[in-house]
Amino acid sequence: MPPDPSRRSERSRRAILTAATDLVHEVGYRKLTIEAIAARAGVGKQTIYRWWPSKGAVVLDGFLAAVNENPDDLSLPDTGDVAADIRGVVRAIVAELADPTLSGTTRALMTEMQDDPEFADMVRERLLGPQLQAIADRLRAAQEAGQLRADLDVPVAVELLVGPLYHRWLLRTAPLTEAYADTVTELALRALSP
Amino acid sequence: MPPDPSRRSERSRRAILTAATDLVHEVGYRKLTIEAIAARAGVGKQTIYRWWPSKGAVVLDGFLAAVNENPDDLSLPDTGDVAADIRGVVRAIVAELADPTLSGTTRALMTEMQDDPEFADMVRERLLGPQLQAIADRLRAAQEAGQLRADLDVPVAVELLVGPLYHRWLLRTAPLTEAYADTVTELALRALSP
Repeated sequence: MPPDPSRRSERSRRAILTAATDLVHEVGYRKLTIEAIAARAGVGKQTIYRWWPSKGAVVLDGFLAAVNENPDDLSLPDTGDVAADIRGVVRAIVAELADPTLSGTTRALMTEMQDDPEFADMVRERLLGPQLQAIADRLRAAQEAGQLRADLDVPVAVELLVGPLYHRWLLRTAPLTEAYADTVTELALRALSP
Repeated sequence: MPPDPSRRSERSRRAILTAATDLVHEVGYRKLTIEAIAARAGVGKQTIYRWWPSKGAVVLDGFLAAVNENPDDLSLPDTGDVAADIRGVVRAIVAELADPTLSGTTRALMTEMQDDPEFADMVRERLLGPQLQAIADRLRAAQEAGQLRADLDVPVAVELLVGPLYHRWLLRTAPLTEAYADTVTELALRALSP
């Protein structure tokens, strides 16, 4: 009986994502090549190009698989205490950005976004967008509960919360700490309160 | 009489900075080489390496020369109306980030910062730091005048203002407009007020 081609495909896909994730940690994003990913995964280059348009796209998928980020799992808890719920997510973002293993890959993805607007769309749609949407949903629920200003521009409010975190991380202005996360949360919520 | 060597040096230095700035617009940062800068400026590669440690350092100096940014000129006006003064600087940052000519170079500098912490120090010290300091100085004056919270953490307050701008610009979450600048200013100042 011949092997099931869909199972073989799935095995190759996983091998490619694992190879991409391992190699980006070993050699860095810049020096990573599709050839090296193919060799490590034991597939041909054309197999990779059949499924992904670019090196960035493979690394993004590997990253999403590694952090096991399912857009359905991203929704924030709603304990009724918006300050506590937002403090939790802001701390989680800081922890993810400050994680030395993940940070190299996320920096590489952000770098690639600067050069390639199509890739930027892909990262926004699959990685950043769902995270920002989850925060927006929680803020809207708080707004409906009368805990935040009725005239709040929710997308801007989300960027007021996460913008300072990415600013400090991307521009390396100072260490990214939990204390910083909490001060940003406290200041931003003061701006958003009725 | 032989030519004055310091004047000749200054001429070479300017030619190198102009060549770097022109070439980064023509071919993009990634494809720019020290060889190409040297050829365009009519100097040897070793002349460039004598004055700058890397391609990024030459481009940074060219950018600073082009925008004529003198740290002494950066201080914000103090009209007594902190909201108006901050609105002005936030709009100016948005205009600079949204400028298509400058934006390519600044994106390249931010990209290079992700790969090279030493270069990041240089950009922070010479480009970002003085801008952030000027905003911090204006906020401190407002704080002393009793217009902002006495317990304000000023460096965090600065990142609350500029973080959302860089977030939208670097992560391309939405168009960077003057209306966005004004909403961020209004929200942030609400957080910072007594």
